[in-house]
Amino acid sequence: MSFQQVRDLGPRDLRRAIRAGRYAGPTAGCAPGRLQGNLAILPGDLADDFLRFCLRNPKPCPVIGVSEPGDPHIPALGADLDIRTDLGGYRVFRGSDGGRHVGTDDLTAIWRDDLVAFVLGCSFSFEDAVVRAGIPLPHVAAGRNVAMYVTSLQTAPSGPFRGPVVVSMRAFSPSNAIHAILLSDRYRLAHGAPVHIGDPAAIGIADLSKPDFGDAPDLAPGDIPVFWACGVTPQMAIRAARPDLAVTHEPGHMLVTDLSADAAEHTLGGVGPASTSTISRGATS
Amino acid sequence: MSFQQVRDLGPRDLRRAIRAGRYAGPTAGCAPGRLQGNLAILPGDLADDFLRFCLRNPKPCPVIGVSEPGDPHIPALGADLDIRTDLGGYRVFRGSDGGRHVGTDDLTAIWRDDLVAFVLGCSFSFEDAVVRAGIPLPHVAAGRNVAMYVTSLQTAPSGPFRGPVVVSMRAFSPSNAIHAILLSDRYRLAHGAPVHIGDPAAIGIADLSKPDFGDAPDLAPGDIPVFWACGVTPQMAIRAARPDLAVTHEPGHMLVTDLSADAAEHTLGGVGPASTSTISRGATS
Repeated sequence: MSFQQVRDLGPRDLRRAIRAGRYAGPTAGCAPGRLQGNLAILPGDLADDFLRFCLRNPKPCPVIGVSEPGDPHIPALGADLDIRTDLGGYRVFRGSDGGRHVGTDDLTAIWRDDLVAFVLGCSFSFEDAVVRAGIPLPHVAAGRNVAMYVTSLQTAPSGPFRGPVVVSMRAFSPSNAIHAILLSDRYRLAHGAPVHIGDPAAIGIADLSKPDFGDAPDLAPGDIPVFWACGVTPQMAIRAARPDLAVTHEPGHMLVTDLSADAAEHTLGGVGPASTSTISRGATS
Repeated sequence: MSFQQVRDLGPRDLRRAIRAGRYAGPTAGCAPGRLQGNLAILPGDLADDFLRFCLRNPKPCPVIGVSEPGDPHIPALGADLDIRTDLGGYRVFRGSDGGRHVGTDDLTAIWRDDLVAFVLGCSFSFEDAVVRAGIPLPHVAAGRNVAMYVTSLQTAPSGPFRGPVVVSMRAFSPSNAIHAILLSDRYRLAHGAPVHIGDPAAIGIADLSKPDFGDAPDLAPGDIPVFWACGVTPQMAIRAARPDLAVTHEPGHMLVTDLSADAAEHTLGGVGPASTSTISRGATS
């Protein structure tokens, strides 16, 4: 199926199309309004350290879901969701490979009963809000990747997980930069407010035109660069930890959940709607 | 009375002390947590134009109260409040004076039954929130005035009211600048989010070290200047309109209201608490 054919599918139908091998493209712009996430799968003996790493670094690593060990399902993110088959592409890392990965579109054959899947927020819901507010995002309009940079900022380590904060950069007029900062703060699951504005050298970026990941950015005269924590940060921390097995998503090929991206900012705060059947009001008559 | 003697007075006792001539100093730091406001008094024939000017320029001119024509009381801001006597100093402008003013501490002798008093938000509640968040404000710590600049940004005119946007500038590390931007947006009655960040020349400011009002600022290396709309904007628009009579507060000598500065951000949205006596629930038994 083409992007045009899948872009208006709901999240469940989109996951089914991916699961059946009928779509394997990027998910930006798919299932509008639904929360999408980055994937990280780790062996159970590293799961606690990695979860602590995420909680200590919530801007690069906003947790939106964690599976039970060995369970490839995360019902809170989608009733029928199967983490082994519902992403368009995976990268499989093994400790002996020196950071190289093997690509696959199905984890069924390598699934183990100790694996834990982590779903971490990505920037899509923030970028959607920026575009809805009428603020231009040149990389989105041009279909390019956002520019990403390894910085001199360091994550708070946990066990073997450590390393630099990776940031994505978007450049705006000063007025739009202020507006984008305010909008991003509302999307804590999409990395929240930026970590830096202005001088790239202050966070160890030597040359904006040479990103470490993604495509070179377009800056108009007078634009101010704004830097957000980025989901590549946990991927670098995972590679640094050299687990015997780890899986991440193929960049741009996210897990599409059933959750409303806007509602999730509230509901994933941990307090769900009250179940009326369990509320005791006492006898009133 | 000294500042030390009045700083812990409640708003009503502070206004009484000012009314009785026992205190005439600046009100920054007085009546902690209470909303303070800038004052503008205009003849009734200009009141509609000026109110429209404020509504068209809400960042420099956030309206927190308007009196009835000829009424020197604004009970919504303080039950016993008398706008003629409750500020420590006033500036009286007359159309024939070419922009010069006469100072006074009592408007009783010049009060007219067509005068309308406007109370506009000031930056104190935002600055309080910044200081509470642990972000340094050098001008506050040093007891100096914030630096203010006439910009090339223009207000939306209304009748004879028009002119440039005046901004106040506070400089921060990039990380604190992001935090201050987020905090300020919560204080819409204190000018809200900034109107500009970064290059002063982009809004017509030639030299940050030479403010048009207030004291020269302190910038540390790497600081980014952040510019907020400022309450001097309506004062310049009033002088441009050359009313036959106008009154503003002496700078720094604000009207201290009974309202909680935090609560006012919600209650002055126009929907007050429900009066239970007027809610009809119908018969239930």
